[in-house]
Amino acid sequence: MAETLQSRRELTIEQIAAMTHAKPRAGDPLDRRIGNIAPLDTAVATDISFIDNSRYLDALAATRAGACFVGPRFEAAAPKGAVVLVTPQPYPAFVAVARALFPDALRPSSLFGVTGRSEDARVHPTARLEAGVTVDPFAVIGPDAEIGANTVIAPGAVIGPGVRIGRDCAIGANATIVHAMIGDRVIVHAGARIGLDGFGYLPSPKGHQKIPQTRRVIVQDDVEIGANSTIDRGSTRDTVIGEGSKIDNLVQIGHNTSIGRHCVLVSQTGISGSVKVGDYVMMGGQVGVADHFTIGDHAMLAARSGVITDVPAGARYNGWPAQPAREWLRGVMWLRRMARRGPKSEGDAPDGDDS
Amino acid sequence: MAETLQSRRELTIEQIAAMTHAKPRAGDPLDRRIGNIAPLDTAVATDISFIDNSRYLDALAATRAGACFVGPRFEAAAPKGAVVLVTPQPYPAFVAVARALFPDALRPSSLFGVTGRSEDARVHPTARLEAGVTVDPFAVIGPDAEIGANTVIAPGAVIGPGVRIGRDCAIGANATIVHAMIGDRVIVHAGARIGLDGFGYLPSPKGHQKIPQTRRVIVQDDVEIGANSTIDRGSTRDTVIGEGSKIDNLVQIGHNTSIGRHCVLVSQTGISGSVKVGDYVMMGGQVGVADHFTIGDHAMLAARSGVITDVPAGARYNGWPAQPAREWLRGVMWLRRMARRGPKSEGDAPDGDDS
Amino acid sequence: MAETLQSRRELTIEQIAAMTHAKPRAGDPLDRRIGNIAPLDTAVATDISFIDNSRYLDALAATRAGACFVGPRFEAAAPKGAVVLVTPQPYPAFVAVARALFPDALRPSSLFGVTGRSEDARVHPTARLEAGVTVDPFAVIGPDAEIGANTVIAPGAVIGPGVRIGRDCAIGANATIVHAMIGDRVIVHAGARIGLDGFGYLPSPKGHQKIPQTRRVIVQDDVEIGANSTIDRGSTRDTVIGEGSKIDNLVQIGHNTSIGRHCVLVSQTGISGSVKVGDYVMMGGQVGVADHFTIGDHAMLAARSGVITDVPAGARYNGWPAQPAREWLRGVMWLRRMARRGPKSEGDAPDGDDS
Repeated sequence: MAETLQSRRELTIEQIAAMTHAKPRAGDPLDRRIGNIAPLDTAVATDISFIDNSRYLDALAATRAGACFVGPRFEAAAPKGAVVLVTPQPYPAFVAVARALFPDALRPSSLFGVTGRSEDARVHPTARLEAGVTVDPFAVIGPDAEIGANTVIAPGAVIGPGVRIGRDCAIGANATIVHAMIGDRVIVHAGARIGLDGFGYLPSPKGHQKIPQTRRVIVQDDVEIGANSTIDRGSTRDTVIGEGSKIDNLVQIGHNTSIGRHCVLVSQTGISGSVKVGDYVMMGGQVGVADHFTIGDHAMLAARSGVITDVPAGARYNGWPAQPAREWLRGVMWLRRMARRGPKSEGDAPDGDDS
Repeated sequence: MAETLQSRRELTIEQIAAMTHAKPRAGDPLDRRIGNIAPLDTAVATDISFIDNSRYLDALAATRAGACFVGPRFEAAAPKGAVVLVTPQPYPAFVAVARALFPDALRPSSLFGVTGRSEDARVHPTARLEAGVTVDPFAVIGPDAEIGANTVIAPGAVIGPGVRIGRDCAIGANATIVHAMIGDRVIVHAGARIGLDGFGYLPSPKGHQKIPQTRRVIVQDDVEIGANSTIDRGSTRDTVIGEGSKIDNLVQIGHNTSIGRHCVLVSQTGISGSVKVGDYVMMGGQVGVADHFTIGDHAMLAARSGVITDVPAGARYNGWPAQPAREWLRGVMWLRRMARRGPKSEGDAPDGDDS
Repeated sequence: MAETLQSRRELTIEQIAAMTHAKPRAGDPLDRRIGNIAPLDTAVATDISFIDNSRYLDALAATRAGACFVGPRFEAAAPKGAVVLVTPQPYPAFVAVARALFPDALRPSSLFGVTGRSEDARVHPTARLEAGVTVDPFAVIGPDAEIGANTVIAPGAVIGPGVRIGRDCAIGANATIVHAMIGDRVIVHAGARIGLDGFGYLPSPKGHQKIPQTRRVIVQDDVEIGANSTIDRGSTRDTVIGEGSKIDNLVQIGHNTSIGRHCVLVSQTGISGSVKVGDYVMMGGQVGVADHFTIGDHAMLAARSGVITDVPAGARYNGWPAQPAREWLRGVMWLRRMARRGPKSEGDAPDGDDS
């Protein structure tokens, strides 16, 4: 286990300082070797840590970390034992070291130690795989599919007919990709379902008639899609996930919806069909957006917002139904104040509530 | 890719008019061939489109569609280039054409171009498959399972011991079906989990004791179940999904619950255990229903409703805790008005809120 | 089907009375054989049932159950035909009988009737399996993985490199476990994803930079994890699920979070990263907890609570943002009363709402 979880790379303080432009405290040893990252409270002598919040000053004083990035204002609070690396941006410096120590953690690799195509994978004779594609056991690649160079397909993943996947991608275990075109450097985690039918029916006297879903899912470059998330194919327009957008686990994206570039959608968020989401939009966890609305660039939807309006660019929304966050907060606080003053409401509970 | 996504069928205007009872505009060419469906703004000369809302009148004027269904009141606004098909119900006519052009999109088929049973599937010797069953690579069909004629089992799907699946069904990639009986013409999308244990424990001094889940899931004819949804087996009663009901992605249905006929449950909705849902019930996305309540026929639960009461037949509910939608809306509007008038609440924010 | 769903064990009333310390009604036959459990309304002569709520007195009077556990106060209301077993705790007694009749329902077993290792599974030569491990077809066990005695790995499950799984566990169909250490007697249901990357990015001018996720998921003994749930590996600390905790379907647990012992998390709940949840915490369905907060021991979060504060030990919270349940209820009731009195708000609806 240690083998696979522990980095085997090491960096000296000198290398770290050069890479991050952080300034070592005068007299601290530049040849100390760092092999891992850790929070202040669990770090040991070969770990590097960071502080960017005064809440952690006690932890800084007590840390056993071998090195620590600190902002100029916390330099004096750092213990003698640690190499102190002063930088205006401790956290980005810490992340840079993490990325250098754990390059393998930036993209999933074979789960079976496979190089090339496992004998136990099934690749249709009409599928086209570029050089360096890794296919783990029991993965299925269907007719006319195309897989770009160096992409890794994990065990049990299913790539449907005609799907195109770019280069340097990682497709997770038991993920399903059908009716889709995937760009380069895309990570799709285990169990994600991309390109299945959108949810469309026409009521009729004989029951709900299924409306054919005829378009694709387009996933642009550098997107990451979390475990067990679902992105439906379009009915009459392609569903699109824009370049660099990051989607967490258990997220639902409906048919015909387009998500812009560099958006961040946190876990369990659901976007209905035919929604237009701009660029650099942030959505907290468990957000819902009703169909056909537009969310402007750089908008921020707080966790659990339920959106049933258009949201202007740059706006911050919250609540159900979602409204500008400041107004929402005013309503919350006002209600709390009023209810506290009001008469007690014993015996007035809604049915089914047991408190 | 074009092969698999583009329809290869075509219909003439004459055939379309006959099929939908729409009336072509006088003088429009009846021999024009239509091969695809599209929205007004992206349609090209071989596509058919529709308009049913005045919001899209500009798009109608500018469309390059080869043909367009319009209601009588919009006929005059249609451009000269398109064949205009007048009908009181443009959208149902459009769907009828879509279904005729894309019959293969009405039910998923093999993802590996398989006819019959893939050599790479594992079908237990005691399982019984009727004629015309398709089994994709790495699907597993367990002891004593029965699969009806023409059903398609996608790659990696797992059908457990004794499960019965009807005819003309499609079971998606990596779906799991155990302890279940599935009707005819049922679609189960990729990653759905049907018939696993319900969530039941008895607190004890030694920790939570697992309560045996001993019943099945019954899925009646013409049901569709979305990707990564979970429907638990009953503990002491079968969990039932009624005929023709449609369940979106990432929906949870708890043990012993029965869903009536022709219900529609949108994505990320969760129904607890022992709930009784009537027929023709509609639930928006992210709804929650607490255990043991009854939802009457034709009730409508707005997206994000949280139900902790019984809901009468035909009622519309919304909010948390859910109440009649009209009352909920009155409360929302009243609070917004009051909070706007009230004193500002700076410095009064709940902990952890950063707005 | 009957074979797999019907218990083949039977117990006499005498055995049941001995096992549960319930007292048979004077004169009731002690040699009656019970082979199944059922609710009062569907029970037949070989079934045992129970009553613990006066709502079901009519069902008790009409039941055809062969036997029924009743509290002392309901003894007189029981019908002549049933053996009446009087006990202060009817439901725990009922569960004890259910566990004795259905021991196989307490832990999933092979879905393909396999004993030992299926020829169609792929076990890496460097993996170590103790005696009595069952591996179903198309399961994948990666390099250096370790699986404890008597554990069952269902079809299509993927166990990644270096993962350690304890004894007497059951890993569900198509589940994925990577970067994890799993204790004894753990049940992981189908489609669960354990140990995939947490959701962490650093904004940069070139887009969101992925932050390496370098730690594991630790799942302690006797945990159960529901279908399609996702538990992310830590970035700088292990994500931990404490002993005996039970997690329902479609739950999300973020990186670095620790869940205490004997907690219960109902379906569709989402816990963000770096949350500390104490022991014996209960969360209803669709709860959300924002990152870095602490939930004290024995706290109860009502269904749909959205937590953006610390929650003290033993507290009951509800609402969005979550507050003590009593205060939340007061606010709900007060708003309902006020809005009912206030002027109507016609024409004042938020955009997009159609009621």
